[in-house]
Amino acid sequence: MTAARSWRFSGERVDSIVVVGSVALDSVKTLWGESQEALGGSAVYFSLAARHFARVSVVGVVGQDFPKEHRRMLAEKGIDLSGLKELPGKTFRWVGRFGRDLSDAKTLATHLNVFARFQPKLTPAQRKSRVVFLANIDPDLQAGVLDQMRRPALVACDTMNYWIVSKPEALRRLLSRVYIFFVNEEEAKVLSRQPTALHAARVISHWGPKVVVVKKGEHGALMKVGERFYAFPAYPVEAVKDPTGAGDTFAGGFMGYLASAREYDDLRHLKRAMLYGTTLASFNVEDFSTRRLENLERAALEDRFTEFREALRVSDGGFAVKPRSRVRAR
Amino acid sequence: MTAARSWRFSGERVDSIVVVGSVALDSVKTLWGESQEALGGSAVYFSLAARHFARVSVVGVVGQDFPKEHRRMLAEKGIDLSGLKELPGKTFRWVGRFGRDLSDAKTLATHLNVFARFQPKLTPAQRKSRVVFLANIDPDLQAGVLDQMRRPALVACDTMNYWIVSKPEALRRLLSRVYIFFVNEEEAKVLSRQPTALHAARVISHWGPKVVVVKKGEHGALMKVGERFYAFPAYPVEAVKDPTGAGDTFAGGFMGYLASAREYDDLRHLKRAMLYGTTLASFNVEDFSTRRLENLERAALEDRFTEFREALRVSDGGFAVKPRSRVRAR
Repeated sequence: MTAARSWRFSGERVDSIVVVGSVALDSVKTLWGESQEALGGSAVYFSLAARHFARVSVVGVVGQDFPKEHRRMLAEKGIDLSGLKELPGKTFRWVGRFGRDLSDAKTLATHLNVFARFQPKLTPAQRKSRVVFLANIDPDLQAGVLDQMRRPALVACDTMNYWIVSKPEALRRLLSRVYIFFVNEEEAKVLSRQPTALHAARVISHWGPKVVVVKKGEHGALMKVGERFYAFPAYPVEAVKDPTGAGDTFAGGFMGYLASAREYDDLRHLKRAMLYGTTLASFNVEDFSTRRLENLERAALEDRFTEFREALRVSDGGFAVKPRSRVRAR
Repeated sequence: MTAARSWRFSGERVDSIVVVGSVALDSVKTLWGESQEALGGSAVYFSLAARHFARVSVVGVVGQDFPKEHRRMLAEKGIDLSGLKELPGKTFRWVGRFGRDLSDAKTLATHLNVFARFQPKLTPAQRKSRVVFLANIDPDLQAGVLDQMRRPALVACDTMNYWIVSKPEALRRLLSRVYIFFVNEEEAKVLSRQPTALHAARVISHWGPKVVVVKKGEHGALMKVGERFYAFPAYPVEAVKDPTGAGDTFAGGFMGYLASAREYDDLRHLKRAMLYGTTLASFNVEDFSTRRLENLERAALEDRFTEFREALRVSDGGFAVKPRSRVRAR
């Protein structure tokens, strides 16, 4: 990064993002340690990733026990919390555990608390936002958020098995109004009743989303745009400590970059968005809760992004041929 | 492909490859069909992939029932069968089945037949070869092949769970003499007793191989070179019919390209080798047995290779910014 280059964005050049989702206190145990009642939730992970590229505004709910230091930290990162409501009662809590298979989160307990009464209500400024990400909540609530918006230019959403099974019709209706759909590989297969991620993405794209992004955890992600597929690996991270929030972090990097690029249908931008999402997720899994994301500087993000981009670049073979090599004599 | 361009290679410009492995008759059932007593075996898949880049010479054994048409077809593709011995008895047979999970082959029957008496013996010309691939056989036999070679410049091998469990010491000794090690993800974890592919590759690389390639099936492959990891996705194939031989086809494309490039330690060549291996495997899974590989023209291979290389190319962002887009009004 040269000194002259600034990563600051101005309201003129990038589009702001509204994110609707959970704000939670997570207790997570993995083979490499554990965290107790630490900051989590889809809207939080998404915001901490997207903030590098765009102004992010949260629609969510917390209880009276939500630590003030979390509010302060998020505000310091430039995240707008004017739509984060406090209700009487306790904040949403999730207790989970990961074994050797890091793609398989085991939920030990879910206490919805105030989140059970979540009725997203957008502020006047949020209604005017051009970009919206509907994180994993009841598809009827997701649709209700869209109804409140004036005229969003870019709509994206995520979902989970619970809604796929319990509200398939509402989810299908929502998908017809969405441009980008983020979904886990297993959930994509269940939702579409297809045997592979590729078949699943094709079927789902017929329901509305022009861009379907299938998240495969440590195996990367697959994007379907029009009739074409684009597969990218995950950035190789040896010291994974906690995969919690990786999917929402991925979506945050993806959507944040795209909002800053503004040409939402340009394939070059969509591929860069995939790589920013992947890179941000790779940082997130390096520590528990939001610790690594909180401390992540834009320069470190750009360094890893560039390194990853270069690692994926395959030469066209038009380089000078040197003499024969011998790498291993017996 | 322009008319002026020739894909023919001359003995002067590329290194020939010796491959030691199985030649088999496979009966395979998948969700998309089945094949009966069709051509298979690691040496066959490897050769049919590598032939596009280098002269390949097989060390193997068949029974008296091995169909003459298979010999003829392989010879027509330029594959040297002077080291393919015929013994009294029947050819090696494998019966397998794939369910929805295409990475999980279920072996229903293995009839080793003449393969049980396989004692690889290289011809004088094969002993002088610069490049050798030791496909999945008894590690003591693999070492015996190396002992017969005069002074190979590039040594690579594969293995399988059976040898990892039954002959771990012989396998470790062999790995100390190998430059490139190809291994399935699950087998890499068992061999190294590590929880992830990345940890496994690191541990295994300490035993000798400077390049460790972990094959992840539909999720692509991971390559460790020195201290760095390079992950590549699989080429997205929707119509997978039969994954049999994909790993050996991958190794054939990888080793064939590398033999033709001759600079075995140049990262640019190693990355191109990964992509050629991946591309060839993507063709192989499109039909049963070796059907697609038999008919594959170099031009079609180059077309898909180039398309895949471009799909993985992520722009540096230095392109002209157009006006804001609106992709989805509500």
